[in-house]
Amino acid sequence: MQQDRDIIETAHAMADAARRAVLPFFRAPDLSTDNKDAGGFDPVTEGDRATEAAMRAVLAERRPQDAIVGEEFADKSGSSDVTWVIDPIDGTRGFMSGTPTWGVLIAAARGGVPVFGIVDQPYIGERFWGGLGQAGMTGPQGARPLAVRGDRPLHEAILFTTFPEVGTPEERNAFGAVADAVQLTRYGMDCYAYALLAAGQIDLVIEAGLSNYDIQAPMAVIEAAGGIVTDWQGGPAQDGGRVIAAAGRMQHKAALEILERHAS
Amino acid sequence: MQQDRDIIETAHAMADAARRAVLPFFRAPDLSTDNKDAGGFDPVTEGDRATEAAMRAVLAERRPQDAIVGEEFADKSGSSDVTWVIDPIDGTRGFMSGTPTWGVLIAAARGGVPVFGIVDQPYIGERFWGGLGQAGMTGPQGARPLAVRGDRPLHEAILFTTFPEVGTPEERNAFGAVADAVQLTRYGMDCYAYALLAAGQIDLVIEAGLSNYDIQAPMAVIEAAGGIVTDWQGGPAQDGGRVIAAAGRMQHKAALEILERHAS
Repeated sequence: MQQDRDIIETAHAMADAARRAVLPFFRAPDLSTDNKDAGGFDPVTEGDRATEAAMRAVLAERRPQDAIVGEEFADKSGSSDVTWVIDPIDGTRGFMSGTPTWGVLIAAARGGVPVFGIVDQPYIGERFWGGLGQAGMTGPQGARPLAVRGDRPLHEAILFTTFPEVGTPEERNAFGAVADAVQLTRYGMDCYAYALLAAGQIDLVIEAGLSNYDIQAPMAVIEAAGGIVTDWQGGPAQDGGRVIAAAGRMQHKAALEILERHAS
Repeated sequence: MQQDRDIIETAHAMADAARRAVLPFFRAPDLSTDNKDAGGFDPVTEGDRATEAAMRAVLAERRPQDAIVGEEFADKSGSSDVTWVIDPIDGTRGFMSGTPTWGVLIAAARGGVPVFGIVDQPYIGERFWGGLGQAGMTGPQGARPLAVRGDRPLHEAILFTTFPEVGTPEERNAFGAVADAVQLTRYGMDCYAYALLAAGQIDLVIEAGLSNYDIQAPMAVIEAAGGIVTDWQGGPAQDGGRVIAAAGRMQHKAALEILERHAS
């Protein structure tokens, strides 16, 4: 329990440090960007690097024994059973555009499985966390517990995704088939969509091409709030790839059937 | 000038009243919704009605001589030269989904042309305003002036829209041709996209099927910040329909050429 409490406190300290590091870069007039991937558009800001460095500094002081997997710097091995899986700015396209739906993702994993996660939106001042017996959020309207909305038929479901920007044609086609079956589809919310699912606002998030640091923090938060996160075959999602998150078994099963039919 | 000052103060008082009225409905567990349009999905919440009523109450007290055009209630005629054009919740789909990118839209128009506008995001606590000699915003990071980013070539531009949800196939096709020519396209931000354009974050917003209350407030704010808002032929946009907003003449001209080629 002391070990769990230390993990939770460290995660919040990392999120606090990340907020301080990242906010000076958000909507700054002259944001310098690199292009990590010459074939596509993958902006990496100075803010990205400064924010991951700030989180690593918290770990170096509080839990130097743990391993670290981050988006911006090399993996660090550890001597404990805990690995931190972090993404300093999930949704760099949104960040560059000034939208408030990017987030800082922090997960603590044991044996490759996330046991505690934080999704933090520094500009709004909203934080969603879950795992190790907790599931809660704080924001402009104060603190409240997190709970998914539960079972509901697909034709009443609200679906979120980063498509049409992301994925192969086959993946977009499979996603489109689910989109045709739900009540409402929304786009472009980055990791914020997973937070909304954990908070009981929406039913499904479907994405593809994810890395482990994209999904482990949302996965811990959603599972702690009573939701389901798997790959498109219903298997483990912690390594990324094609991911579906659901607010209930009913939506999960119905969406999986459609995805499997269109992207086998 | 006293007249202008009163319009500005009244608009802010309306936005303050709207915040108080709408926030109890946002992310509320049991949001009752109607379906205004049996053929499509157009949720209208109790929050929508309560918020427009709150704004009309401010006008009844402060400026009963003005006309009112709102989304939720019947038009009210007036004896002054000012018409208030208001949308209590622009982006009801986003509102229902819990995203923080819907907004309260307030415009004061003279002769059918908006002269002052406010785009307010109550949950974040962000307000963007412009017209009658002002262009500014307040939010989590304090107050700052609004200014568009200015000319930049289309291949370096950031484009926002509510497509693929909105528009005819022809309109979606024309939009897609512009999307193919820009650096980055983002979706699903509702009126928040116009605020980001006024704040210098993005280059273009392209939409179709708008009403006058959807565009008049953003139009006043963007023009005050130095931007351009027209229809897809470069004509007046205050009556809605197909609208393009641009951060500079260069982006505006280049995008219009593509739109006209694909949606004549």
